[in-house]
Amino acid sequence: MRTLIKNALKSAHPADSITVKGWVRTRRDSKEFSFIELNDGSCLGNLQCIADAGISGYDDIHKMSTGAAVGITGQLIESQGKGQTWEIHASSLELIGESPSDFPLQKKGHSPEFLRSISHLRPRANLYGAVFRMRSRLSKAIHRFFDEQDFTYVHTPIITDSDCEGAGEMFRVTTQQQGAAPKPEEDFFGKDTYLTVSGQLEGEAFATALSNVYTFGPTFRAENSHTTRHASEFWMVEPEMAFCDLEGDMDLAEEFVKYLVKDVLDNNEGDLEIFNKFVDKGLRKRLEFVAERPFQRVSYTEAIDILLASGQKFEYPVEWGVNLQSEHERFLTEEHFKCPTTVYNYPKSVKPFYMRTNDDGKTVTAMDVLVPGIGEIIGGAQREERLDVLQANMKDHGLSEEDYWWYLDLRKYGTCPHAGFGLGFERMLMFVTGMKNIRDVIPFARTPGSCEF
Amino acid sequence: MRTLIKNALKSAHPADSITVKGWVRTRRDSKEFSFIELNDGSCLGNLQCIADAGISGYDDIHKMSTGAAVGITGQLIESQGKGQTWEIHASSLELIGESPSDFPLQKKGHSPEFLRSISHLRPRANLYGAVFRMRSRLSKAIHRFFDEQDFTYVHTPIITDSDCEGAGEMFRVTTQQQGAAPKPEEDFFGKDTYLTVSGQLEGEAFATALSNVYTFGPTFRAENSHTTRHASEFWMVEPEMAFCDLEGDMDLAEEFVKYLVKDVLDNNEGDLEIFNKFVDKGLRKRLEFVAERPFQRVSYTEAIDILLASGQKFEYPVEWGVNLQSEHERFLTEEHFKCPTTVYNYPKSVKPFYMRTNDDGKTVTAMDVLVPGIGEIIGGAQREERLDVLQANMKDHGLSEEDYWWYLDLRKYGTCPHAGFGLGFERMLMFVTGMKNIRDVIPFARTPGSCEF
Repeated sequence: MRTLIKNALKSAHPADSITVKGWVRTRRDSKEFSFIELNDGSCLGNLQCIADAGISGYDDIHKMSTGAAVGITGQLIESQGKGQTWEIHASSLELIGESPSDFPLQKKGHSPEFLRSISHLRPRANLYGAVFRMRSRLSKAIHRFFDEQDFTYVHTPIITDSDCEGAGEMFRVTTQQQGAAPKPEEDFFGKDTYLTVSGQLEGEAFATALSNVYTFGPTFRAENSHTTRHASEFWMVEPEMAFCDLEGDMDLAEEFVKYLVKDVLDNNEGDLEIFNKFVDKGLRKRLEFVAERPFQRVSYTEAIDILLASGQKFEYPVEWGVNLQSEHERFLTEEHFKCPTTVYNYPKSVKPFYMRTNDDGKTVTAMDVLVPGIGEIIGGAQREERLDVLQANMKDHGLSEEDYWWYLDLRKYGTCPHAGFGLGFERMLMFVTGMKNIRDVIPFARTPGSCEF
Repeated sequence: MRTLIKNALKSAHPADSITVKGWVRTRRDSKEFSFIELNDGSCLGNLQCIADAGISGYDDIHKMSTGAAVGITGQLIESQGKGQTWEIHASSLELIGESPSDFPLQKKGHSPEFLRSISHLRPRANLYGAVFRMRSRLSKAIHRFFDEQDFTYVHTPIITDSDCEGAGEMFRVTTQQQGAAPKPEEDFFGKDTYLTVSGQLEGEAFATALSNVYTFGPTFRAENSHTTRHASEFWMVEPEMAFCDLEGDMDLAEEFVKYLVKDVLDNNEGDLEIFNKFVDKGLRKRLEFVAERPFQRVSYTEAIDILLASGQKFEYPVEWGVNLQSEHERFLTEEHFKCPTTVYNYPKSVKPFYMRTNDDGKTVTAMDVLVPGIGEIIGGAQREERLDVLQANMKDHGLSEEDYWWYLDLRKYGTCPHAGFGLGFERMLMFVTGMKNIRDVIPFARTPGSCEF
């Protein structure tokens, strides 16, 4: 029976005999014994092993080099060394898989670019192991949050025939061959189909049946963006709540972000340390700050006034009616309020057709949550639930009612106020790890011109 | 503050004033009062409301027809009626959204085919609300199972340039227009790309770094299958474990299925009843049976002997070396063993290149879990960890080493025995609900010729 190193390191008492299996991080030999630092990816920490010369399997010790897979059986004892609680005094060693001397992770200090080129080995590096364990933990915290709040998880479709809100460029899905001159009606689904950019519209159908729902799945943008914040394939979380207004929506968004940040602070098995030490020395402090302080709330109109009064020079000029740019968002959250900031009631003209028109006729119930270091992390809205107003909005946006017949049905039969938002999962992961490039928090990133592995 | 009906029905004591919001299922009027059955999708049960004529909002009572969205505030009191614990004595009513008389779910007894054509309203029907709550619960149980066993959740890519094992026909992903005659190198990713059929190979890369991992995400098959068990887009669960052999793999698969079935039996908020009553009267008994009894394990060779000795007439003839067909699988689990059955050590010739070759040279460490009523629900294997044997297998399958360079790297550097399996999520959902058509357990199903909503 194999013991995970994570559990060995947390052991409450010594053990006469345990077996651990993992990969050698380093080995030092003396005449009479060897030290092996073994890691199995279950946590950041290595388990130190002392192997006396002559024990079973010791003949292979010279093959147990960095990267080799090794099994070690022995006594779990209190460590004599610094910074460790437990170590293993081996009674036998097993060489499971060698690692030739060209193993690329022998030495430290590889560039992120090089490590992306070996994304299949990258999780064996300490930093990336920590990133992907954090990714898993954050995913599970998301499910736990919604479970505790009685939300139903919905798998909205990935292949779709609609483009949601024209939210972005889309990938086409087809079974027809390159270079043929085929007709959509002869394609697999009998029409043109795409990869989804959002599950919101389908989420609304389920919210108006099951009350509180959320999606958590992959979404796609075929934009030719070469930035550190955009990927062609990324995961998104989209809650949607029936009988909920803008204020309830902002409340949930704030509670959600705080919950995730607290979870990362409380349950990170040591991984947070590596980010705080090597990636972003202000990370822990910033996370504690976000977990504790109420978010600032400010209307778009107030935000514009603040930006105009700031005396800052922005690349994109500020005036009422323009969409906020990243520089504006970051000024508000980083410089002005110095805390996460929710901006609400945006001009109708810069937002999609499905947002609810306010009584002033020129703003809609949109809201964005901005966080320091990232900018927009959540975008949401109370939806337009009034059939006639929605129809008028669609007309203004040049959308055909025929394409959205089922979405209009949700307003025709038992319509109700409802609201929701989208959280870019990778943006949140970057926020809690301090990692600066979205490519480094996705197991195998897809970006323009790059689809390896 | 709104109370979910699920929580109102579970209340420990009466309450002076609560507010519930939901959709009217039925209404009966007398001269002095009305009865409203309200449902908000948080559970199967309705909350019965008594509204005396003349209370606030009662003027709209005639508009509170089936399907209308209504808010009700009042006293939560012990129910006088049968089969209910709590009801609400209204002090005020609020008509939130009317439901015209052409609301399609007025009457019961619609066909599954018709209900698929209104998939956006379908979750408002009792049976489908129960299906999609069960889908959510099963998803959460999957995450909980792996969390309790120290597995890391990995998001393997959806867009891919490899076809895994040639597991099935694939959808192509492109940004090029229909009818153009473009070159792959000019496409978005600079090459031909597809929708994934499995995250296994990428899962192996993460297992050989983090030890125990699993994926849970959408997968795709572009097969022109018009059966009740195939969809073009479905969700799959794929655990992968380093330092694990075939036996450990079979143990995990059995434990996993039992865990999910037990979870459904213990935590279904009444939804199981509707399946047991209206979909499959043997359901609860079958689930209890699966939760309690150990699974039968039998080698492929033994299974063939059983089939040959059975005297059954099969459409596909049985002999050593053929792949098992659905009729064979169902005979084994339903007729012969009458319990879930794991078949292992299949002929090498019928299985993919990555499975581990046994010492006999003619079988591989594959395993399938078969369950009554469904047939194969899990397929898995111990993977070939020996570089030279894997290379030889690839050659036999006509695969180029160049295409799989990174997969071979996993065997070159610190290779180790590892194993995993795939569970078709919708198949499992069909198993625990008794639903007979995969289209009816997917929110918006995608099948050949059909991609609506």
